[in-house]
Amino acid sequence: MKVSRTFIPTLREVPADAVIVSHRLMFRAGLLRKLANGLFAYLPLGLRSLRKVEQIVREEMDNAGFLEIRPSVVIPGELWKESGRWDSMGGALLRFKNRLGADFVISPTAEEPFTALVRDELSSYRQLPLALYQINTKYRDEVRPRYGVMRGREFVMKDGYSFHTDDESLDNCYQDVGLAYRRIFKRCGLSVIPVKADSGAMGGSGSEEFMVESEVGDNTLLFCRESGSQKCDYAANVEKAECKADYTQCDSASTPPIEKIDTPEVKTIEELCAFLKTDAKVFIKTLIYRAVNVELEFNEIPGSEAFLTGKSSPGKAINEMYFAVCIRGDLDVNEIKLTARLKAAEVSLASEADVERLTRAPLGFAGPVGLNSIPVIADLTVTAINDGVTGALAKDLHFKHVAYGRDFRAWMVTDLRTVKAGDRCPHCGGELYEKKGNELGHIFKLGFKYSKSMNVSYLDENGKSQMPIMGCYGLGLDRTLASVIEEHHDDAGIIWPISIAPYHVIIVPIKYDGAVKAAADKLTAELEREGIEVLLDDRDERPGVKFNDADLIGIPYRVVIGDKNLAGASKKVEVKRRCEKESRLVELDKAAKELSDNILRDLAEMICQT
Amino acid sequence: MKVSRTFIPTLREVPADAVIVSHRLMFRAGLLRKLANGLFAYLPLGLRSLRKVEQIVREEMDNAGFLEIRPSVVIPGELWKESGRWDSMGGALLRFKNRLGADFVISPTAEEPFTALVRDELSSYRQLPLALYQINTKYRDEVRPRYGVMRGREFVMKDGYSFHTDDESLDNCYQDVGLAYRRIFKRCGLSVIPVKADSGAMGGSGSEEFMVESEVGDNTLLFCRESGSQKCDYAANVEKAECKADYTQCDSASTPPIEKIDTPEVKTIEELCAFLKTDAKVFIKTLIYRAVNVELEFNEIPGSEAFLTGKSSPGKAINEMYFAVCIRGDLDVNEIKLTARLKAAEVSLASEADVERLTRAPLGFAGPVGLNSIPVIADLTVTAINDGVTGALAKDLHFKHVAYGRDFRAWMVTDLRTVKAGDRCPHCGGELYEKKGNELGHIFKLGFKYSKSMNVSYLDENGKSQMPIMGCYGLGLDRTLASVIEEHHDDAGIIWPISIAPYHVIIVPIKYDGAVKAAADKLTAELEREGIEVLLDDRDERPGVKFNDADLIGIPYRVVIGDKNLAGASKKVEVKRRCEKESRLVELDKAAKELSDNILRDLAEMICQT
Repeated sequence: MKVSRTFIPTLREVPADAVIVSHRLMFRAGLLRKLANGLFAYLPLGLRSLRKVEQIVREEMDNAGFLEIRPSVVIPGELWKESGRWDSMGGALLRFKNRLGADFVISPTAEEPFTALVRDELSSYRQLPLALYQINTKYRDEVRPRYGVMRGREFVMKDGYSFHTDDESLDNCYQDVGLAYRRIFKRCGLSVIPVKADSGAMGGSGSEEFMVESEVGDNTLLFCRESGSQKCDYAANVEKAECKADYTQCDSASTPPIEKIDTPEVKTIEELCAFLKTDAKVFIKTLIYRAVNVELEFNEIPGSEAFLTGKSSPGKAINEMYFAVCIRGDLDVNEIKLTARLKAAEVSLASEADVERLTRAPLGFAGPVGLNSIPVIADLTVTAINDGVTGALAKDLHFKHVAYGRDFRAWMVTDLRTVKAGDRCPHCGGELYEKKGNELGHIFKLGFKYSKSMNVSYLDENGKSQMPIMGCYGLGLDRTLASVIEEHHDDAGIIWPISIAPYHVIIVPIKYDGAVKAAADKLTAELEREGIEVLLDDRDERPGVKFNDADLIGIPYRVVIGDKNLAGASKKVEVKRRCEKESRLVELDKAAKELSDNILRDLAEMICQT
Repeated sequence: MKVSRTFIPTLREVPADAVIVSHRLMFRAGLLRKLANGLFAYLPLGLRSLRKVEQIVREEMDNAGFLEIRPSVVIPGELWKESGRWDSMGGALLRFKNRLGADFVISPTAEEPFTALVRDELSSYRQLPLALYQINTKYRDEVRPRYGVMRGREFVMKDGYSFHTDDESLDNCYQDVGLAYRRIFKRCGLSVIPVKADSGAMGGSGSEEFMVESEVGDNTLLFCRESGSQKCDYAANVEKAECKADYTQCDSASTPPIEKIDTPEVKTIEELCAFLKTDAKVFIKTLIYRAVNVELEFNEIPGSEAFLTGKSSPGKAINEMYFAVCIRGDLDVNEIKLTARLKAAEVSLASEADVERLTRAPLGFAGPVGLNSIPVIADLTVTAINDGVTGALAKDLHFKHVAYGRDFRAWMVTDLRTVKAGDRCPHCGGELYEKKGNELGHIFKLGFKYSKSMNVSYLDENGKSQMPIMGCYGLGLDRTLASVIEEHHDDAGIIWPISIAPYHVIIVPIKYDGAVKAAADKLTAELEREGIEVLLDDRDERPGVKFNDADLIGIPYRVVIGDKNLAGASKKVEVKRRCEKESRLVELDKAAKELSDNILRDLAEMICQT
């Protein structure tokens, strides 16, 4: 392809709103243009690379036994009402009415149409497992789209859904997709960190996120520093990260009896520490939470009866319920862990009025001792406090010498702490550190959430009706492409991995004329005959401009053809890899063969590596 | 691919709402499922064929010098307000607001984003011509979606837009796309009729539609019967069809003087014919039309001054204007021709009150003689009437002995008749006949409509600012796919042309077991090694069920492998083409070679044909 015949509007200027390097380079290299906030147009170069990412994703999903289908982008709201997400999804779900007044959404993810399609076709266990995917346009009504396609409104996502008769079959599929994802990212030249993640509102258990490091990442990730000679690969999203206990269970036999103390005008833990001249670690911080749509099976937890009067009916979620959550004074409650533990749609701190109503004390004096109105949930750290301080459920009063097990017991004890840099690795005890990351893919076991809400069933071997168990597998294509640029660039521009480069070779004639033109045309034709994708810079521009553009758009191999090197018995051209500084002179007649050998080897390596 | 591992839910039942054969077969063969009215999901077989159509379209557009880009599907409403189509487009344009209250549309066509992109990048004539296209999801908010994907709400369209410095460059591009379309449809195995069409609301001149015959077609097409030994290929959409004059200009020298006659209670032409004992052909039917957004240059038409007081300012459209349109009594006015002639957004018959106000007579007595309040437009046929009858602008009165040129003159004379079956071909005079058709593609010269409204300019050789002239080229992929099925099927199912068949060969082992299984696996592997796409029906079903499904899904080559033919020295398999009745026995060892030779030849032929 001749540069003059394609459309590569490179820019010297950086768009004002482009703060990350991929955003800057996608615009500067003419891959992308903006139509509105969060809405973009891929130009020819960008689309070529996006298509290559798409093809890699398709091949690996096909290899993993998934079947590609394509539901519409516009989906009837009815299906979202069935699944319950019409209400639970929040403002990011773009809802609209058509001219006849019917409700529709533009799919951000597609659990509903996939589940509906399978529901209508599924009758027998013999049809399972069934694993389907699409690569299609998605839309999220982001309030603040930014970072180019890294967080746009419209984007291209591969989303897959699998349906199984049992856990083992789901496990196998989940593992296969995990491997496929690792291959996909390696083939794109990306260093991706698979981390354990919480599956959040999707419901279910077992979940892995595929992250890339990014200074502007949405996610906080925790990693283990290698401790001594030992290698440890612990990596987790803070949403789910655990850590090794930094406490030991102590006996409360020698603890003095619990004692009420006056703490006038003392409300915060800092003030209490100063007042009592002690450390935050001895405090039992008590927070009152409101939880919505709680699906936890209360019947299975002893001591629940008292809290459930009029609230619970078997198999139904509890609309609204309050909890007291206790945690050691130096730690923070991880609300995502709390949400997951309660199987709630959402948790949030209770209002001041609710706190006063439930604790019968002003804000700042909540504590677990004597609190009977709501269930008390204790973080694991609380059970190790045998001489602690906590609010006494009355204005200006606290308890000291509080011992867990002696002075109070929690209704539920669980891990709720927010793990931080400096905490200890749960695997090896090494020190954890933090990084910011962006999610490129997410796979998780959905369980029966959609089978149940959308009424999917099949007949098993015994003719009994059963629900399929589901898995769900997403991967963002635009983000993947942008992340490749984040990882592969220098000051001059993009350095494309060969697998997703828009072209393999750029030929730069110093002046597209005479013998140089003839040589450039010949080499282009020879390379194209070998299936190599060639961009020929036939423009009447200064060599410096052409070199800068070649570097900016990041084509892996550059061939410079000039009069000087062409002169003499063995006509030569200058070959340079974008990722290397040095160029080499190669005989014109041998250049096509050498280049295509190198390129095919590079391409093969990116596949074989995996 | 093994049938048991893919997802081909064939049906015996026909969906109740499927009235055309492609709709029925796409559902029965498991290519498609419905998500809601006009919204569908392509299943694996359907998507494979759609992708092949897409690839053919892409190759031919690339060959025609077009560059593929991809704007978003969701487009900011701002751009549509700039072009004016936000208001002019009607209810089929799906408009919505996002959660911040900004206006958006889901693109039905994409003049706006393409024009905006080019506007932002275009500076010099050296960048032109520029021809861009996309293959992307489109949406039309159809009130009555039907016929499956033939008239769905969401669909996949290839739409291209070209930008030029001059008419010649546009002409060349328009011709190239016309040829590319012919190749695309031929490569899909489709008989397509290119017809002259009116470019309607798109504005511009020069337009060609690519039609397929369909009993449920939206369009009426007129064709020339071959007259005698002569072949004539005249074909036109009724919207634009012309015909040979069926009248001769006569002298009015011998016509008696015009005479007012009483016609009490006589209003319709039928009543007048009976009353005057004459033929409708002598009547001058006069209809009052209201036209909206008239962009015609009135200054260029003599006699316009009288009608323009307060209405016209140079370069601006006239919001609303009335016209009297005269046509021979046996003919109908073609409102699309009228709209185009007036360069109006829309024309419609005036209300009764307006007719009475403008003609100063009750409805039914309009006529051109003495009508001075509004411009009179005469169809060509009217100028040949030299002894006619028409309304006398007063209740119960008509004129007779009316002669054009003597008793009145029109402000404009033009072709406005609706051509019908039986009229004469404008090329050869043969008799025209009608067919119904569906439009698969439409190419037209847009002119300056969008360059002007969206303010696109470039500097020409002399540094002078100019507007580019545009062309626009649409092609519906789903409709193309469905039309292939309409053309290629029999009672048993689809008969795919090899070029877009989801698989080339289906292998049907009578029982997938023992030697038969071994032979089936061997042949599959051999064919796949040659790049042939094979479906292997490994299901434990009766042979009859497998044969029916193979016929239904229409795979071009079927290989049946059974114990009987495999026995003996030269093991044989039965090969049958879907489009033929007879099968042949072929040696197992030679089958792969023979089949792949045949398939590659078939594929090559579909390309070479073109």
